[in-house]
Amino acid sequence: MREVAVIGTGMTKFGELWEQSFRDLFVEAALAAVADAGVDHIDSMLIGTMSGGLFVGQEHVGSLMADYLGMTPIPATRVESACASSGAAFRQAFIEVASGMSDIVLAGGVEKMNDGADVTYALSTAADQEYEVFHGITFPGLYAMIARAHMHRFGTTREQLARVAVKNHQNGARNPKAQFPMKVTIDQVLNSSLVADPLRLLDCSPVTDGAAAVILCPLEMARKFTPNPVKVIGTGQASDSIALHSRADLTVLNAVRRAGENAYKMAGIGPADIHLAEVHDCFTIAEICAIEALGFVEKGQGGKAYDSGLTALDGKIPVNTSGGLKSKGHPVGATGVAQIIEICDQLRGVCDERQVKNARIGLAQNMGGSGGSATVHILQAV
Amino acid sequence: MREVAVIGTGMTKFGELWEQSFRDLFVEAALAAVADAGVDHIDSMLIGTMSGGLFVGQEHVGSLMADYLGMTPIPATRVESACASSGAAFRQAFIEVASGMSDIVLAGGVEKMNDGADVTYALSTAADQEYEVFHGITFPGLYAMIARAHMHRFGTTREQLARVAVKNHQNGARNPKAQFPMKVTIDQVLNSSLVADPLRLLDCSPVTDGAAAVILCPLEMARKFTPNPVKVIGTGQASDSIALHSRADLTVLNAVRRAGENAYKMAGIGPADIHLAEVHDCFTIAEICAIEALGFVEKGQGGKAYDSGLTALDGKIPVNTSGGLKSKGHPVGATGVAQIIEICDQLRGVCDERQVKNARIGLAQNMGGSGGSATVHILQAV
Repeated sequence: MREVAVIGTGMTKFGELWEQSFRDLFVEAALAAVADAGVDHIDSMLIGTMSGGLFVGQEHVGSLMADYLGMTPIPATRVESACASSGAAFRQAFIEVASGMSDIVLAGGVEKMNDGADVTYALSTAADQEYEVFHGITFPGLYAMIARAHMHRFGTTREQLARVAVKNHQNGARNPKAQFPMKVTIDQVLNSSLVADPLRLLDCSPVTDGAAAVILCPLEMARKFTPNPVKVIGTGQASDSIALHSRADLTVLNAVRRAGENAYKMAGIGPADIHLAEVHDCFTIAEICAIEALGFVEKGQGGKAYDSGLTALDGKIPVNTSGGLKSKGHPVGATGVAQIIEICDQLRGVCDERQVKNARIGLAQNMGGSGGSATVHILQAV
Repeated sequence: MREVAVIGTGMTKFGELWEQSFRDLFVEAALAAVADAGVDHIDSMLIGTMSGGLFVGQEHVGSLMADYLGMTPIPATRVESACASSGAAFRQAFIEVASGMSDIVLAGGVEKMNDGADVTYALSTAADQEYEVFHGITFPGLYAMIARAHMHRFGTTREQLARVAVKNHQNGARNPKAQFPMKVTIDQVLNSSLVADPLRLLDCSPVTDGAAAVILCPLEMARKFTPNPVKVIGTGQASDSIALHSRADLTVLNAVRRAGENAYKMAGIGPADIHLAEVHDCFTIAEICAIEALGFVEKGQGGKAYDSGLTALDGKIPVNTSGGLKSKGHPVGATGVAQIIEICDQLRGVCDERQVKNARIGLAQNMGGSGGSATVHILQAV
């Protein structure tokens, strides 16, 4: 396989973007990525979208976006893995460049969630329709069960969950693309509305419109376009049972663990070699389980990491320097590539007041549903 | 890139399968493919589905299917390109094997259309939501405009359209998997209910439940599993404007033409070297435009090919020996891989009374929407 690099990135602001349509969002991010990379064409596109059908009545996303980007007749394919859709799209783009099939490939993601759709129903289609959704469970409910199990088994506290949100909003306050760039206090989290006990409003990522795109090419071609390409040194993807009730241990994100192991193995490194990470904090408990599954802390010690500041911007392993899904926002299909953009920006040293010093290797972990799918990518400054 | 072969195939019967759910259908086809290939594991899955969200309220298709197939934690990714979803999934699977990322990969497709959903609305999401669907057009309407333009410009007759249906039902009558395996006469087609002038009921492919799956592996590994692997010698994918009104010529399927050119180039052959083809006859006019775009006849001569018997089972270039979408059925996300299965079965010589003699090279053409996306694959017996 050829070595592959990211040579350009682009994303919209994340938020309730009532003035921009599904196609507008994608085109803005894609054009920004094309301009950043300085390429005059692309050979192929992979686009992550969770549910064009339910959110905006639009499938056939590849054709639409190639058309509105002015890029027909290139191959343009939509990839779906619920909230891990663009992590999976990035992986397919990586494979396409690595294979030699295409040289310059755009990997993107887009979701238009604020357009009148029943968002809770649309998101629920990431769970098991027959055995979970039909019986009334929603995603806050699923993650609340994970949180309860984690608190019961490992003594994780309500305050530790709140510290995830506090930390991510601190980071997001330094990110001009963030949907909710305000700082929050532990008291504000603990006193926000109850959504699904023990999770409160400020434990939950918001409903967001947005798009993100990156340009990949063979590493050996990368310096023609940019002085600071970012090399993709590891990719992993894995699946787990779609329904939470099928798992031996509710607190273990097995797909994240397996995807991480595969990415580490490919990169020839381990968790201790990672300088920063973007992880899938759709709910505060998800970040705690993710840092355990990725090996940044021992199993069960995720909550305590938020007492010690391990994952803070100036901690040993800064997590979600972008603000994460929690503060930056979570346009579900766009999240995976947006995470990769934060890692690229950090490795390129362009993150201003949220810049992590001496960051050379970063990891992005994207997840679908309650952990039924996950992707992990490891990137390195070259 | 490594050379790639298909080593096993499996599909459900196509039809109104009220006793089988979305997941049941996929699992049946996938298990049949695994058994046919004789593999004891798979490394990865790509699954084409057009709209799990709108048809059955289920996205996150990769996780669900890996789970119910008992294949977690392998990577499992859903690919969508409207009715070309599994053609696109097959292409991504081909690239994944060719790259060296994975050895044994399942490419499948599934759609459960008969489950209470508003099928006409769900299908319309393959067109441009803002500039076509919102204003009331449906797919029979779009293809009716293509048919009218073809009749006007090239003198294509209503009877020639009918002959496409007659020929495909003749073939489908010999296919035990077909949804509508009855023969029809020209008179029956011409007197069936008017759907969108000039297209009548028997010009339209039906609403179908079904699934199809194939197993791919590196060619050099293929003979360990089967004495008759089928080599993938060409792949092409292309996009076109999603809306019909944006095209310079309504009768030209530009994405099909470009995908075909790319596949021919990769295979190092031309249309005259193809022994049989499965093409995307969602409506009778689509088959006529497809055989033109693929170069089997000159532009504008597609209708006349049905006067001469060129595409009949015993013609110079048999088209849709399976019965096509028209008679075999069209579970939209499954169609692309089902077409590839027919080509594999023909090249392996297992098609009984619809077997094409001395078939060594076959082509499968899958298409999304009114031609906004297309894939072409060329396969060869080895």
